Amino acid sequence: MDQWIVGNLHPIPRILMGPGPSNVHYRVYQAMMTPVIGYLDPQLLSCMDEISEMLRVVFQTKNPLTLAISATGSSGMEASFVNFVEPGDTVVIGVNGFFAARMVEVASRCGARVIQIEQEWGKAVEPERIIKALKENPQTKVCGLVHGETSTGVMQPLEEIGSYCKKRETLLVVDAVTTLGGAPVKVDEWGIDVCYSSSQKCLSVPPGLSPITVSAKAKDLLRSRKTKVQSFYFDLLLLEKYWGEERVYHHTAPASMFYALREGLRIIMEEGLEERFKRHQTLGDHLKMELEGLGFKLFAQEGFRLPMLTSVVLPDGVDDAQVRRRLLEQYQIEVGGGLGPLKGKIWRIGLMGETCKMQNIACLIGALKEIL
Amino acid sequence: MDQWIVGNLHPIPRILMGPGPSNVHYRVYQAMMTPVIGYLDPQLLSCMDEISEMLRVVFQTKNPLTLAISATGSSGMEASFVNFVEPGDTVVIGVNGFFAARMVEVASRCGARVIQIEQEWGKAVEPERIIKALKENPQTKVCGLVHGETSTGVMQPLEEIGSYCKKRETLLVVDAVTTLGGAPVKVDEWGIDVCYSSSQKCLSVPPGLSPITVSAKAKDLLRSRKTKVQSFYFDLLLLEKYWGEERVYHHTAPASMFYALREGLRIIMEEGLEERFKRHQTLGDHLKMELEGLGFKLFAQEGFRLPMLTSVVLPDGVDDAQVRRRLLEQYQIEVGGGLGPLKGKIWRIGLMGETCKMQNIACLIGALKEIL
Repeated sequence: MDQWIVGNLHPIPRILMGPGPSNVHYRVYQAMMTPVIGYLDPQLLSCMDEISEMLRVVFQTKNPLTLAISATGSSGMEASFVNFVEPGDTVVIGVNGFFAARMVEVASRCGARVIQIEQEWGKAVEPERIIKALKENPQTKVCGLVHGETSTGVMQPLEEIGSYCKKRETLLVVDAVTTLGGAPVKVDEWGIDVCYSSSQKCLSVPPGLSPITVSAKAKDLLRSRKTKVQSFYFDLLLLEKYWGEERVYHHTAPASMFYALREGLRIIMEEGLEERFKRHQTLGDHLKMELEGLGFKLFAQEGFRLPMLTSVVLPDGVDDAQVRRRLLEQYQIEVGGGLGPLKGKIWRIGLMGETCKMQNIACLIGALKEIL
Repeated sequence: MDQWIVGNLHPIPRILMGPGPSNVHYRVYQAMMTPVIGYLDPQLLSCMDEISEMLRVVFQTKNPLTLAISATGSSGMEASFVNFVEPGDTVVIGVNGFFAARMVEVASRCGARVIQIEQEWGKAVEPERIIKALKENPQTKVCGLVHGETSTGVMQPLEEIGSYCKKRETLLVVDAVTTLGGAPVKVDEWGIDVCYSSSQKCLSVPPGLSPITVSAKAKDLLRSRKTKVQSFYFDLLLLEKYWGEERVYHHTAPASMFYALREGLRIIMEEGLEERFKRHQTLGDHLKMELEGLGFKLFAQEGFRLPMLTSVVLPDGVDDAQVRRRLLEQYQIEVGGGLGPLKGKIWRIGLMGETCKMQNIACLIGALKEIL
């Protein structure tokens, strides 16, 4: 390759109203300019402690084992299964979308016997069906659910299942990739044992980290494993030795991403969780109303709609790819298309973190009025 | 937690002369300020193509499957074993340091039968001993070696082993975490099948990415696996579908880190590989001479010393922890201590990428003269 053909990189900025990443606050970009320092530098270790502290606030938990995995949100899913599942273990998963189906795939790759409780995409899985499956399979090691299913815009109720698991050995593993920081995720109160998320959705930090929190009950199970965790990189007991007091080297911490996450969490602390949740709910409702006014139909089941991600069925005659291309090229607005069987049929419109502003709703609705 | 206790983050910058991360060029920091865009945005996909192109130059390869894994260097090691090893497969590993021992651990977690060719820490493994083991175990699936062993400062010769493996089914997997971008890593010429590295050493980009390249022979093996790769996140065929022409979503690309890597690679293209290798060799030699002048003894075997990482035995009476603390606190210089059995006995002094400057050698030697 001729060396001079790689020019400057000056992408056109976008309004990120897809399923993530969301827009990033300028303070978070500035934080990434902080000089990189070593993975055992006391200054970096303090930064990590502060991240853990603030993640506990966002996860609404007291779990000491709360940290950010040095990889994107999908790695949180993998960590949540490889650490807790041994070959032959039974896993129950509520399957009502793309990411729930991915949970099945990830659990299977750990050698789990997976029981899928299937539900139509666009609807929540009835808690009683999950509990029935858990009753019929009392040896179940892990029950996996997606709190905010990004592929359909559905919010899964968790409390009833959590209080069932609390009294038993089964761990409740929850994917809060889309919801954390945008809607309540009450890890302790709801009885969630393992909860993971990502940096780039309602936390509004660039993609690259996966926050995770682990209950005492789940940690006991880690310690009693018969086999080694199949992943070295995602081994939570090794990660704990680095994030905790022992400070044993495991991998070279991605300092710039840690700085970014720390600043993103600080912005959340300043706004306050309740205020932030209210903002996502109010503006999410407003966006839904506006889209209905344009002839879009809400896809997700009423009563179970995510505030931060709205799924809509396209009006008749609207060409998915063409309209999204015009939104991107003429208005620099990104919205998400449908995943898997929903491709071409629905859009997924995100209002997450920094993107969740009246300004952006007005811009999208205005653009759509001009295009349609 | 009271929200206001997390203040601004203003760490004191360091001269990073440890085993990595190295110092980062201001252009790379600036690149991270580029707005985050979506994982299927055509602008991001072009950026990824350019990263692959430039990585091929640095890896000295034509392998189409050349990309950056969205996690730190340790994940490259894991990807290199989980993808190519199935339970029961034989793996031969040359073990002469901490990271080679970690290879054994990672391979074992894939269910491999690992044959360790052990060598004293501080020495290279004799190629003939590796080849003997491969001859005795012709069914060996993977031969794993660490090119630059960061724990000891030793450079492992690879050519002879590579040309042996080239004619057989065994894949040669090489850890170039420390060497890539600072010394020749001739993937195609030497017959390396899988080679991985990290962003934060001689590429001088913040930690968080792991460049990897995979030969056609290794890709054939991937396609002929009987079992699924145990890791979904590190599954190279899925990663290829995202980085390659199909553009199938796998995970949300860490855009800011991609921008950083792209800029770091551009800086390397501008300097030119040969110039860059010469700089690391010349200044590495100079540092070694200066350290010997102060009474340090070179630890790594003569003829097999890494240019970018110098390991030295402390002079009698020098207190490891105390002197390193003074270097860090009074001079803001980070040097690395010994890992594992070498703790307290040796230092590991990095001159990688941006850190590799006369200025930094003068500063370290000057500081040591004042302290000792």
